[in-house]
Amino acid sequence: MTATAVHETLAAQPLTDHHCHGVVTEGLDRPGFESLLTEGAPWPGISPFDTPVGVAVRRHCAPLLDLPRHAPAEEYLARRAELGPREVNRRFLTAAATDVFCVDTGYTPHPLTAPHELAEAVGGSAFEVVRLENVAESTVRAGVEPDAYGAAFRAAAEEAVRQPGVVAVKSVAAYRTGFDLDPARPTDAEVTEAARRWLATGGRLADPVLVRHLLWTAVDLGLPLQLHTGFGDNDIRMHRVDPAHLTDWLHLSAGTIPVLLLHCWPYQRQAAYLAAVFEQVYLDVGLTLHHVGPARARAVLEEALEITPFRKLLYSSDAYGLAEFYLLGALSFRQGLGALLQDRVEADELSLPDALRIVRWTGSANARRLYGLPSETVPRRD
Amino acid sequence: MTATAVHETLAAQPLTDHHCHGVVTEGLDRPGFESLLTEGAPWPGISPFDTPVGVAVRRHCAPLLDLPRHAPAEEYLARRAELGPREVNRRFLTAAATDVFCVDTGYTPHPLTAPHELAEAVGGSAFEVVRLENVAESTVRAGVEPDAYGAAFRAAAEEAVRQPGVVAVKSVAAYRTGFDLDPARPTDAEVTEAARRWLATGGRLADPVLVRHLLWTAVDLGLPLQLHTGFGDNDIRMHRVDPAHLTDWLHLSAGTIPVLLLHCWPYQRQAAYLAAVFEQVYLDVGLTLHHVGPARARAVLEEALEITPFRKLLYSSDAYGLAEFYLLGALSFRQGLGALLQDRVEADELSLPDALRIVRWTGSANARRLYGLPSETVPRRD
Amino acid sequence: MTATAVHETLAAQPLTDHHCHGVVTEGLDRPGFESLLTEGAPWPGISPFDTPVGVAVRRHCAPLLDLPRHAPAEEYLARRAELGPREVNRRFLTAAATDVFCVDTGYTPHPLTAPHELAEAVGGSAFEVVRLENVAESTVRAGVEPDAYGAAFRAAAEEAVRQPGVVAVKSVAAYRTGFDLDPARPTDAEVTEAARRWLATGGRLADPVLVRHLLWTAVDLGLPLQLHTGFGDNDIRMHRVDPAHLTDWLHLSAGTIPVLLLHCWPYQRQAAYLAAVFEQVYLDVGLTLHHVGPARARAVLEEALEITPFRKLLYSSDAYGLAEFYLLGALSFRQGLGALLQDRVEADELSLPDALRIVRWTGSANARRLYGLPSETVPRRD
Repeated sequence: MTATAVHETLAAQPLTDHHCHGVVTEGLDRPGFESLLTEGAPWPGISPFDTPVGVAVRRHCAPLLDLPRHAPAEEYLARRAELGPREVNRRFLTAAATDVFCVDTGYTPHPLTAPHELAEAVGGSAFEVVRLENVAESTVRAGVEPDAYGAAFRAAAEEAVRQPGVVAVKSVAAYRTGFDLDPARPTDAEVTEAARRWLATGGRLADPVLVRHLLWTAVDLGLPLQLHTGFGDNDIRMHRVDPAHLTDWLHLSAGTIPVLLLHCWPYQRQAAYLAAVFEQVYLDVGLTLHHVGPARARAVLEEALEITPFRKLLYSSDAYGLAEFYLLGALSFRQGLGALLQDRVEADELSLPDALRIVRWTGSANARRLYGLPSETVPRRD
Repeated sequence: MTATAVHETLAAQPLTDHHCHGVVTEGLDRPGFESLLTEGAPWPGISPFDTPVGVAVRRHCAPLLDLPRHAPAEEYLARRAELGPREVNRRFLTAAATDVFCVDTGYTPHPLTAPHELAEAVGGSAFEVVRLENVAESTVRAGVEPDAYGAAFRAAAEEAVRQPGVVAVKSVAAYRTGFDLDPARPTDAEVTEAARRWLATGGRLADPVLVRHLLWTAVDLGLPLQLHTGFGDNDIRMHRVDPAHLTDWLHLSAGTIPVLLLHCWPYQRQAAYLAAVFEQVYLDVGLTLHHVGPARARAVLEEALEITPFRKLLYSSDAYGLAEFYLLGALSFRQGLGALLQDRVEADELSLPDALRIVRWTGSANARRLYGLPSETVPRRD
Repeated sequence: MTATAVHETLAAQPLTDHHCHGVVTEGLDRPGFESLLTEGAPWPGISPFDTPVGVAVRRHCAPLLDLPRHAPAEEYLARRAELGPREVNRRFLTAAATDVFCVDTGYTPHPLTAPHELAEAVGGSAFEVVRLENVAESTVRAGVEPDAYGAAFRAAAEEAVRQPGVVAVKSVAAYRTGFDLDPARPTDAEVTEAARRWLATGGRLADPVLVRHLLWTAVDLGLPLQLHTGFGDNDIRMHRVDPAHLTDWLHLSAGTIPVLLLHCWPYQRQAAYLAAVFEQVYLDVGLTLHHVGPARARAVLEEALEITPFRKLLYSSDAYGLAEFYLLGALSFRQGLGALLQDRVEADELSLPDALRIVRWTGSANARRLYGLPSETVPRRD
């Protein structure tokens, strides 16, 4: 029994996906699919299918569309179109065996499922994560004087998190300034002056003072704060999103809100360090898991878990757009963590009961505890 | 014979622990034990036992207390209390099979064994490492004028290293400023001015000019300098302790003293680079080894050894407080290095005699050569 | 057949070495050989043979000199001297099974083979890579006024790349300033002012404005630009050569020239990120491969390939001086990539046809496509 106990438990463990987005509700042609498949872009002569994630889609997703493993991209897309988005989404979401979704609703260049639609497809539950940059930008679009910006943003954020189902806030400070920020809460005068600059120039929120203000507003809101960390598209300056840059801010904000470092690659060790030495810090390797694919998910998880307390790692897919990513994230997590834990059990470095606790904690309980979600439902797979 | 020759040689090789601290001499209740088990702190709902090092303690240390592998934390602590600190310390230190200890005596928030007590428990030898920040802070506590600080600190350091058994000095510059320092030796006027600021404000030594002055005083002392690098508690700003920041200082101080980069994780590759290109640089992965545990010690050693010359890696436990860490450090080193070398021998990538030389060098001879310790005693285990 | 198909295909695949140097044409005594064996230097008591690359030479190169595997260094060097440089070079170059060489001719502290000599030894083809810092420094040595420097350097570079066989340019900005540069193209006035400073002080090109100017001149030349990245000798400041620092420059220069990140270790993941999100970015792990040796080449390739599109990884040896490095680079690449791909095929994570395409692409086709080299010749090994 020991030989496969960890994998079986992981297979039967419904996952809590503490950070994801919706799936596209429309059909996708090849350019549309390929542009969602990569954090880059489809380039002449270089198909996004010729990447680790593209290989993983053809290997692990094709069979769910009734195709052989490793089906060619053209066949894959043709069959996907034939089945239609509703059926495709249902198949992948069901196979992912995720039953709780915390959905970041703030990034919508495409028409996406609403959180409840996502959850209904598999009879699960959905919660919402409010992206604070969107709230700030809406505040400005609605019209505000510089000296009223701070209070107006805060009031709008308070209103946003009062909505039913909201369990966390998120910041993409990583994309706007990186983390190499003055850690101190800015004064009202500084915020007014920075808002004046922003209102004069327009565009998205990217002023360092206002990004700091946003992080401190998150502290005031009292909900867990999710922070994009590391890997993303080419709008990231990777050296500025090493989460170690947050250390001074973590000292100043200690004792207030939980902080969830998302994705983290290639800084999973730095994130693990922060999770090991700051009570409020948690991490995941979402997004990374499906981009590196099952072939490397274990290696990334091994690094992420070198020193991370086992109650500090969470699961997320960070799936966006393609239903395939819900499946690949969940599959990479289950296979990668399963192989890691199973080998340690077989080497007698870890007891089986401890391994199974780590499965339950990281797969769901850590997220449920942190976000105050309803207690775990009975596993629906057997 | 080949199949296990490396592991057997490592098992029989007494280790020279070139950087460690004392063990606590008093009994420890659960909060006391847990606070020593982590570089973080015991947090509500998150026991330090639920970490890689906690799992390693229950797996590898419990049997030495006559408990089954993976014994629960409560049972472990009860049995530990029953045996008493003297017996517990004796068991773990004996099992570690370390016979030479270079002890950093400068960090003593708890009552710890003196170096000779540590060594006597196993019939080994003890040497001392002088922590220079302590010397500087004692100099100031004793009363000194700003313009006399430089000379007084140097005189006190010279006095400290003249004591019998002192073989090295250490700096925790990593905790005070990080390594992103002006590499040049400060002028006397700069030191006086910086001392004036420090004397006015008090507190610990953290002025960048005085930290530089401390590093250059180490150069004058002529003994090997140990530098905390990378992993530690939350007083570290990880991005400022990448040892690559030392490059200019290493150029300026080339030809003077050996520099030992301690711990290094997650910068073991950067440390390896410096060891490969600077004659005076050496490294270890102490502290890291017991925190990641035997399950990942090999992976960290693999990275540390990718380009490190084999005469440049040393063993240390960096054990502090818990006698368990002496055992876990030694065990992680022996298992991790043993598996790495054995596999290379079996793949015929490395000859067995070469593998055994690497065992002797890294396990003891490199440290003995560097610190001028007495030549190796006959292995006491057979 | 599957069990070894990837390895067999790699063995039969002639490699395109898109970045290498010449080999020394003279005999080498022990100090001469050892100084070429390391990025450091031979130090008293620490032979460069006692390193991963030294072990790899004795293991993999000795048999080609008719010696047993793991022959002692002394015997190795004696036999090498006995055979003479011409025969030694012929044996290693033939065994490397590289048939196309893109040779950086700009670093010549030793007398080296010219590109055509290198290629003729194995009946292959040679192309040339022009090192732009050399062109700039020659421009200054030839005598130029500050306000004419920009145009004169550009004219000289245009002339250099018009020579037959030139397929790329290279910059060692990493060694001069690192990549933490203002990304904008400097104005003519800025260039003149910087040239004035340089002409006044002499020395090598290391002014940040002129290094930026050099990178932008490369953009104007229109050929692929090779950039030394990461690992090198102790003239590198490792923290300043993280290629992520190039992000803003990559945005500004997007749509112009391909950029090839060379070596990359320990930043192979950061390089992979850039290759995944910028159309123009490619990478290799040359130099790294022979220094870490076959024992770790796979691990480095695994990290480099976590998210790199399969058309973005190239092979290079970055061999310099020692013919052994041509063999070790090629061997490390073939063994490391072969093991990685073969395991994925066996785990059914990758189809065999896909694995074989990745072999052809990374081993040769990506470089041929990028540099516009003649299409692949029929493999000469069977």
